[in-house]
Amino acid sequence: MPQDDEANPALSGQDGAIEESGLFRPRFDASGLMPCIAIDHQSGTVLMLAWVNAAALEAALSSGFAHYWSRSRNRLWKKGETSGALQRIVEIRTDCDQDALLYRVAVADPAGTCHTGRPTCFYRIVPLGPGDLERPLSFDETDR
Amino acid sequence: MPQDDEANPALSGQDGAIEESGLFRPRFDASGLMPCIAIDHQSGTVLMLAWVNAAALEAALSSGFAHYWSRSRNRLWKKGETSGALQRIVEIRTDCDQDALLYRVAVADPAGTCHTGRPTCFYRIVPLGPGDLERPLSFDETDR
Repeated sequence: MPQDDEANPALSGQDGAIEESGLFRPRFDASGLMPCIAIDHQSGTVLMLAWVNAAALEAALSSGFAHYWSRSRNRLWKKGETSGALQRIVEIRTDCDQDALLYRVAVADPAGTCHTGRPTCFYRIVPLGPGDLERPLSFDETDR
Repeated sequence: MPQDDEANPALSGQDGAIEESGLFRPRFDASGLMPCIAIDHQSGTVLMLAWVNAAALEAALSSGFAHYWSRSRNRLWKKGETSGALQRIVEIRTDCDQDALLYRVAVADPAGTCHTGRPTCFYRIVPLGPGDLERPLSFDETDR
């Protein structure tokens, strides 16, 4: 996640090692987790953001289906195991400093991606403008 | 980020309050941060994943330009302030449980989005298959 302004000298060094490395060495946070974005493999739409630990990532790589770590339930979570909205992984990418992941997935049941029955978790718009953070949201239900 | 399997009973309650609320009440983590995905407003391509705190989000909402919280430098960070790759915000979305954000942005200089000179931070592919997490990465340099 470092960009121009955010380059981390301790990691980059003189040769930009971590950014140009051809070796995957995921950097989990102090809790052993890393954020993971899931996008639709055809449309590119952002479906959700969840978390992975090493076990979830290993399960995803070996099975070809998206696995995450459920922070609320504190357990490995195969996406869609109960809902049927399995996510078959088409591709996995890592970011420049290897502390975020991107799953490109084919969703078995798009309506089940969000537990609210929507195809994406990002269905509410935050209006721009100054003022308090607490402000009305608008819903985008075009895909529902 | 809760989906089917991940619904958080403590938050959802009987009426799914947080998911169906029309009020923005962002839920920052214990460090006061929240992950924020930036996507291109036209192509939808995922550009980067960074972090916001309340101050960064307020600055983004009031200025219309993407602001983040730099964890490595421990300061508010206006994206592109030094590189020129400003991100004009077209839309902000929040997810179902209001602990992740999505910025849809127009980038002033696409080549400056990643500090490595790439248009996205997600330029490396992690090959699927069982085995150690530590494995060779392949580069996708099509957009460079």
